[in-house]
Amino acid sequence: MVSLSFVNRLYTVGSLRNTEHGPAYRVKNRLFDATLTRVTKIEIDGEACDLTTTEVVIGTVVRSVGSISDDSPLPFSLRTELEVRVTAPPLAEGPHTVATEFVCEPFGTLEFEAVDYIVQPPAERPHIPRHEDDWSAEAIQERRDFVFDVTGVRLEHAARISYDTELTRGNIEHLIGTAQVPLGIAGPLRINGEHAQGEYLIPLATTEGTLVASYNRGMKVLNASGGVTCTVQDDSMQRAPVFIFDSAREARAFAQWLQQNLAKIAELAESTTSVGKLLRIETYLAHRFAFCRFDYTTGDAAGQNMVSKATFAATSWIVSERPEIRHFYLESNLATDKKPSSVNVMQTRGKRVTAEVLIPRQVLGQVMRVTPEALVRHSAVANVGAFLSGAVNNGLQSSNAIAALFIACGQDAANVAESSAALIHSELADDGLYVAITLPSLIVATYGGGTALPQQAECLAMLDCSGPGKVNALAEIVAGTVLAGEISLASAISALDWVSAHEQYGRNR
Amino acid sequence: MVSLSFVNRLYTVGSLRNTEHGPAYRVKNRLFDATLTRVTKIEIDGEACDLTTTEVVIGTVVRSVGSISDDSPLPFSLRTELEVRVTAPPLAEGPHTVATEFVCEPFGTLEFEAVDYIVQPPAERPHIPRHEDDWSAEAIQERRDFVFDVTGVRLEHAARISYDTELTRGNIEHLIGTAQVPLGIAGPLRINGEHAQGEYLIPLATTEGTLVASYNRGMKVLNASGGVTCTVQDDSMQRAPVFIFDSAREARAFAQWLQQNLAKIAELAESTTSVGKLLRIETYLAHRFAFCRFDYTTGDAAGQNMVSKATFAATSWIVSERPEIRHFYLESNLATDKKPSSVNVMQTRGKRVTAEVLIPRQVLGQVMRVTPEALVRHSAVANVGAFLSGAVNNGLQSSNAIAALFIACGQDAANVAESSAALIHSELADDGLYVAITLPSLIVATYGGGTALPQQAECLAMLDCSGPGKVNALAEIVAGTVLAGEISLASAISALDWVSAHEQYGRNR
Amino acid sequence: MVSLSFVNRLYTVGSLRNTEHGPAYRVKNRLFDATLTRVTKIEIDGEACDLTTTEVVIGTVVRSVGSISDDSPLPFSLRTELEVRVTAPPLAEGPHTVATEFVCEPFGTLEFEAVDYIVQPPAERPHIPRHEDDWSAEAIQERRDFVFDVTGVRLEHAARISYDTELTRGNIEHLIGTAQVPLGIAGPLRINGEHAQGEYLIPLATTEGTLVASYNRGMKVLNASGGVTCTVQDDSMQRAPVFIFDSAREARAFAQWLQQNLAKIAELAESTTSVGKLLRIETYLAHRFAFCRFDYTTGDAAGQNMVSKATFAATSWIVSERPEIRHFYLESNLATDKKPSSVNVMQTRGKRVTAEVLIPRQVLGQVMRVTPEALVRHSAVANVGAFLSGAVNNGLQSSNAIAALFIACGQDAANVAESSAALIHSELADDGLYVAITLPSLIVATYGGGTALPQQAECLAMLDCSGPGKVNALAEIVAGTVLAGEISLASAISALDWVSAHEQYGRNR
Amino acid sequence: MVSLSFVNRLYTVGSLRNTEHGPAYRVKNRLFDATLTRVTKIEIDGEACDLTTTEVVIGTVVRSVGSISDDSPLPFSLRTELEVRVTAPPLAEGPHTVATEFVCEPFGTLEFEAVDYIVQPPAERPHIPRHEDDWSAEAIQERRDFVFDVTGVRLEHAARISYDTELTRGNIEHLIGTAQVPLGIAGPLRINGEHAQGEYLIPLATTEGTLVASYNRGMKVLNASGGVTCTVQDDSMQRAPVFIFDSAREARAFAQWLQQNLAKIAELAESTTSVGKLLRIETYLAHRFAFCRFDYTTGDAAGQNMVSKATFAATSWIVSERPEIRHFYLESNLATDKKPSSVNVMQTRGKRVTAEVLIPRQVLGQVMRVTPEALVRHSAVANVGAFLSGAVNNGLQSSNAIAALFIACGQDAANVAESSAALIHSELADDGLYVAITLPSLIVATYGGGTALPQQAECLAMLDCSGPGKVNALAEIVAGTVLAGEISLASAISALDWVSAHEQYGRNR
Repeated sequence: MVSLSFVNRLYTVGSLRNTEHGPAYRVKNRLFDATLTRVTKIEIDGEACDLTTTEVVIGTVVRSVGSISDDSPLPFSLRTELEVRVTAPPLAEGPHTVATEFVCEPFGTLEFEAVDYIVQPPAERPHIPRHEDDWSAEAIQERRDFVFDVTGVRLEHAARISYDTELTRGNIEHLIGTAQVPLGIAGPLRINGEHAQGEYLIPLATTEGTLVASYNRGMKVLNASGGVTCTVQDDSMQRAPVFIFDSAREARAFAQWLQQNLAKIAELAESTTSVGKLLRIETYLAHRFAFCRFDYTTGDAAGQNMVSKATFAATSWIVSERPEIRHFYLESNLATDKKPSSVNVMQTRGKRVTAEVLIPRQVLGQVMRVTPEALVRHSAVANVGAFLSGAVNNGLQSSNAIAALFIACGQDAANVAESSAALIHSELADDGLYVAITLPSLIVATYGGGTALPQQAECLAMLDCSGPGKVNALAEIVAGTVLAGEISLASAISALDWVSAHEQYGRNR
Repeated sequence: MVSLSFVNRLYTVGSLRNTEHGPAYRVKNRLFDATLTRVTKIEIDGEACDLTTTEVVIGTVVRSVGSISDDSPLPFSLRTELEVRVTAPPLAEGPHTVATEFVCEPFGTLEFEAVDYIVQPPAERPHIPRHEDDWSAEAIQERRDFVFDVTGVRLEHAARISYDTELTRGNIEHLIGTAQVPLGIAGPLRINGEHAQGEYLIPLATTEGTLVASYNRGMKVLNASGGVTCTVQDDSMQRAPVFIFDSAREARAFAQWLQQNLAKIAELAESTTSVGKLLRIETYLAHRFAFCRFDYTTGDAAGQNMVSKATFAATSWIVSERPEIRHFYLESNLATDKKPSSVNVMQTRGKRVTAEVLIPRQVLGQVMRVTPEALVRHSAVANVGAFLSGAVNNGLQSSNAIAALFIACGQDAANVAESSAALIHSELADDGLYVAITLPSLIVATYGGGTALPQQAECLAMLDCSGPGKVNALAEIVAGTVLAGEISLASAISALDWVSAHEQYGRNR
Repeated sequence: MVSLSFVNRLYTVGSLRNTEHGPAYRVKNRLFDATLTRVTKIEIDGEACDLTTTEVVIGTVVRSVGSISDDSPLPFSLRTELEVRVTAPPLAEGPHTVATEFVCEPFGTLEFEAVDYIVQPPAERPHIPRHEDDWSAEAIQERRDFVFDVTGVRLEHAARISYDTELTRGNIEHLIGTAQVPLGIAGPLRINGEHAQGEYLIPLATTEGTLVASYNRGMKVLNASGGVTCTVQDDSMQRAPVFIFDSAREARAFAQWLQQNLAKIAELAESTTSVGKLLRIETYLAHRFAFCRFDYTTGDAAGQNMVSKATFAATSWIVSERPEIRHFYLESNLATDKKPSSVNVMQTRGKRVTAEVLIPRQVLGQVMRVTPEALVRHSAVANVGAFLSGAVNNGLQSSNAIAALFIACGQDAANVAESSAALIHSELADDGLYVAITLPSLIVATYGGGTALPQQAECLAMLDCSGPGKVNALAEIVAGTVLAGEISLASAISALDWVSAHEQYGRNR
Repeated sequence: MVSLSFVNRLYTVGSLRNTEHGPAYRVKNRLFDATLTRVTKIEIDGEACDLTTTEVVIGTVVRSVGSISDDSPLPFSLRTELEVRVTAPPLAEGPHTVATEFVCEPFGTLEFEAVDYIVQPPAERPHIPRHEDDWSAEAIQERRDFVFDVTGVRLEHAARISYDTELTRGNIEHLIGTAQVPLGIAGPLRINGEHAQGEYLIPLATTEGTLVASYNRGMKVLNASGGVTCTVQDDSMQRAPVFIFDSAREARAFAQWLQQNLAKIAELAESTTSVGKLLRIETYLAHRFAFCRFDYTTGDAAGQNMVSKATFAATSWIVSERPEIRHFYLESNLATDKKPSSVNVMQTRGKRVTAEVLIPRQVLGQVMRVTPEALVRHSAVANVGAFLSGAVNNGLQSSNAIAALFIACGQDAANVAESSAALIHSELADDGLYVAITLPSLIVATYGGGTALPQQAECLAMLDCSGPGKVNALAEIVAGTVLAGEISLASAISALDWVSAHEQYGRNR
């Protein structure tokens, strides 16, 4: 895997193997469309191969090395693989060195060298069946049979799907059926958002008894207080590449260069998407590393893939412009995708959304049997607890609402990890209580991902959140629902009837 | 809601209302079984009510106050509600004071006073229909009709359930159908656990394209390395009550008293469960608060409800023994339920489980096109990124596997928030790479929660994880799967083909 | 302390007391220069006072209320106090209400009302003697005598000062002498900075045996590697006011308005300082709070006071422009002054400075008896430890160098808390080890604070860091010194001779 | 530095050099007292040396290899160095392999092998002069001259010491004088501790104007409230070794073994100290690492060195008992010495001490011009700020008091980093405010370190904290002082006069 230069590193040599015709290996073009005009050297273990009998294969095209020339070049597109087939005896098991030199447009002469292995095929294992059309009913049935063969379990309920399986293409691989998560409703909840306005019936998918009842109870308080006011405060999705230099000073100079070239970078990044816009690049210097966060808006999509593509396109240019870059990784753990973190709490990931309400004292007493003072006292103590615990969330149960809504509505359930980060605050107000929750890194989408699947689309439709321009409404609805649960649980803890709620509804030992 | 003493606080007065017979209000017994032997005073707004015409109602029993005596007492069990019905004109809207004095066993004379409100019934809102048997087909259909009435959405796919809806009792309220999450399989994965041994086919429910493929690819590496070694290192589930005193010294004395009375506390706590065992009580003193974590083993259940009940039972006794306790909350945010936190990373919540593997250099090269050195270098840079970001997780995508497995197998998806906390470490080893992931707060269950639902039980059966004594095996399988994904994504980032994997499988704009 | 409007809140009523002439109270002007043109009402406990006999006193000017008019106004400057003296009998002990209405330029009619107390003078306590000239030898001697009277301790060594005590004016109050911290030297250390270039002898003030020796040892490694390369990566000092609104939307609108008015805000802020420049305002929205960080450069000063003044000036205008601001605090805990935090690790506080070195394998072996591999292995394990521990510093002993240098050189030792935050990274390089430390929030100054005191100025002179334009050089020197200690201690731990170093030099039981 | 086995690793080969007699190298005994009975092999670069002409030197004893035998053995004590002198031509520059085999009691035959270097002596640099008696006036003067030679700075004030410099032996190396930090006093402060009771005059060493005045002002509030109540809640000092195994299971088994052998481990650890007691061993498992925290009480000393020695003694035995240990480090970053961290906030490092007070509303109004409500409101907002910022301290200025007291009283100023961690809490109480601060990791000492130096001892005497049994009193005094500053600054921020306090006292541009 050793390469001679940075540009070469963007190509990978791999898949050295013995074929019936002789040794073969593959090169994948990872960065730019190119045109091969000459192959000038192929060596295996230091010995030159006979170029007259060597063939080059791209897709279905087979060319002898000799036939490739300026007049008869071979297009080598981005992300295609080129196979070189040599006439020689089979290679022995173990490591071998492969070296190549060729001429291509627009790069000129390139040479690289790599080590790869000839290995024994691994021990036979049963393989998951795959098909030409892998989402067909036939492919799925074959896999269900395979499950039975391997595990002895005949799937009945897990095998159900209520719609055409082809619709899941792009959402999953190796499909065998669906998980069925019980779906309930809470509300209606009155939401006074900028995007969501009115009464919403909230679909919640869960297997945890009392969850729906708890949220429903909190919604009564919100409704009796005139509804919950929701506000999307910020919106950005990021990919966080890191660029590595020989020294801290080079990293610093690079950070400055980056800001000076924002327009060009944005142009390249945005060329890969009809929706995403590059807002800014945050830079965090540490040692000789320039950690970056490329911040985008991504329309109604969650956008993680969109920003990966856009950032990769931009970094390809960046890397070619700044030869002093020694390494770069498209992700540096600073995104921080699917992980709660301080950087996301501060700088937003996805939507930053606040839900707030002023609850009259009387409503709290009537519905929840608690006083504003009791809730404020509990909240102060819970804050000390959160601080002591080193949590990034001083809320109580934000993940309950978020997981249940995400599953119902085709959101990425893995994002519960970062989306459930929450700041909660309550204070006494004129004869009542002000309570607010801010979700600084809520990842939601009304387009892409699982949102178009038939069941998921129905739940989004229930919320009037299907179709374009709806993602902020969804964010508001999630925040409002989360706040209902916070009030409900805080009241229950303060009023001491928490266990009994579980007793009544839950299924405990 | 004001009460005169701590013991009284355990009762709540509420639901003051005008009935056709006159004002009525309810008292709920929150702590102990008791027997009412006399009612000596009832005052509303400072005026004594006529006890001769006042009635006391518990459940279906209606007694005149005069009829209650030592010889003819009224049992007032834990968690039942007692209603007092007074003969008087209707109360005006607004706050009213209610004061009561009564004699009961084993407490003697108790008096309390509270403020409650007579309010206008809130504005009419459509209500979610509820039924005597709320999980019947009829109740469910009524709610689906209600969804249509309110939202105009006729549920078709979200309405499906492939089994008897009564089975969901205890798992959800206001049931209308199920969310259908596409289900795929990865593997088989060779797991060398202490509880899980052999080849496992992993069910993953997700709507995110490439997820299954990515895990499947990582499993190839693990299999080719002889399988993944998994170890459950610790196991505990907690409820974290806080006890509030007048001074730090009282809190400190209490913490000592707690350790001296562990046996009694354990006895009381364990009296509420046939499975849970109290392991220890951690105490964290701050100010005049004694924050505690009651640590339990909970068998094959996740156990959050089990430990709530057990801790509540124990704290009831504690509170009665230590009159200097000023307030207590059953939860202080130190559990830290459904939130990632340092305390859980250190002290374990659920299972602490490690998956580790020694990957030969050759396997890494063949399957992933990367060298051990490249992965170690990326890992060092990603560690700086994680540190900078203030994350509690230096892994890459643990939540992906955990969410997908949790949904497939009836685990609580809200627990993705804390369960996805991960520590990852890699180092060069003899001609290869040692990689390990430790999940310090993985919440899994093979009993209770959603595990018995038909589809979920099938997926657990695929993993040979249904029935008693299987929870550690499930923990090992989750950890092994998570490690597969870490290797897969780290290699992809290191080898730069990350975006293209999404390109090939995912559904992007 | 209750006030009727936000503008009024900027004034405080206080110091209600009985004088020999009658009740008197004071109002302090907290925000704007103003001119008093009429006093129209003065009430105490709801009763109007006789304005004809009431006097207004500002400084040494005494005016009867009747004499104040448009033609003969009374200037009421920012931060001066106005005393109102009423002719009335003495007020009883306890709370009293004071209400006032007056007309002033440029505000028009203002009225406010406050509650204050007449109290018994507190129990007699010995008071620390104060003088007209509080830094005179006489004042100091009196306080030393006071120390003897109160504690029975006759100060001998703590009473010493080797220079004119007047020089400490502005650095301390209630001066009695000096603390004498033993001062040693390490080095010379070769620093290849952009500002500090050459060999530096490092003054270290400490009482901890082995500290100087440990740093000295690390410096040998750095010198033998050609010196340490130091780079100031960023520079900013902040004050973090928070603005509180009625709703999240108002907070969001305010954040936008703030960015649109940056030029005006910068002008106002910079009007208070000849040195500080406002770089940007970071905004973090949570609930209905707009948390801000005003970032400045502050020249050679640490600048905490400079940015307080500048920010206060700007916020005064902001508050007057945006009447929807309900409250504001000049500091919101987000600065985060004298506290380590994620926000400072990310966003820089003071100087962000990196020290880095490439140590040849041979040097490490010769001087430290360890291999690069051993240090990298230790570093990886220590990283897991740091992550587990929830530290914001994965270094080993940065605070040792920083405290010792800060005390020697007149820096604020309380800033050790945030300045010692450190990120450390090491990796194998061509036959050697690359090690770098980044200090993201190093607060240093070569002007202001304690830097001009005679002893402190000598130590700064030793480092060629006295006089203007030297602060970055000092930051580089601190970072280089810190790195020396990291290498020294990591080597000692790796080579197991850590305890023995303490044995040889330290004074242990 | 490569060694053949773990036991051998405890010895280090080093200092290979050419002497006038031939090559020589040194071995240091790092672990056990031993007796050398035979040297059976010495090889350099694979070639056997002539043992008949080889000499072994320990201290001043020179023995020929041939003279060493069972009858005439050579004692080789712990921490002594043994030099082997070979008769051979000088070695060339560069790496050389040295291999040795010898017999010793109680270990039998041991062999080891190492690589060391012959290097050019490094470039000439001026060296800091050292003396036989390095703390003599002569040595110190020589170094002051050296400072002048190197830097051109003639030290006058930094050269002063008011006592016999020999007293600093054990506190510093390369002594040249003292840093003089201005020393003021605040108070008297009424402390109602369990150890400190009465009125204390607080010595504060600082160069930051307004600091003393600010604390003094807060003390007035505390005094007027009847004094501050201080409580030491816990006490432990730790060293955190890590033990590394081949697998997570071995690490887990080791953790169990450790608890089973606590008595033996405590005995060994405590054999090294007359004061320290091992309280417990916390274990944190991650991957194949067993991270431990050995918790001790350390009497009146801070104890970092005490616990290092004790833990090293215990781990030496542990390592010899558990051959499956692959590596161990005496410190793993989990201590976390001189770094703030969640683990220390939770588990205590040094003293965990709370200061609390109930301030009457009237006192707050009179002295601070604020209401309890205003302070509670600010505190709630500041908590959100602290949470947002990712700080481990929601206090305002704890480090100011701690640094100033530490410098005055001979505490380790580097410990400000962890000692300033603070939790603060305030709540409304009956017509007043309850405020408490908890310092979970306050490192203080009244014995050892700098406490015996003349000036420092005077300041401790002022606090009645010199002599045995005083350390808890000192902890209480520090906490009480910290609380004074919190109240003072919070009031200033709430009352908006913060800048003006700096204006009046501070020296600003």
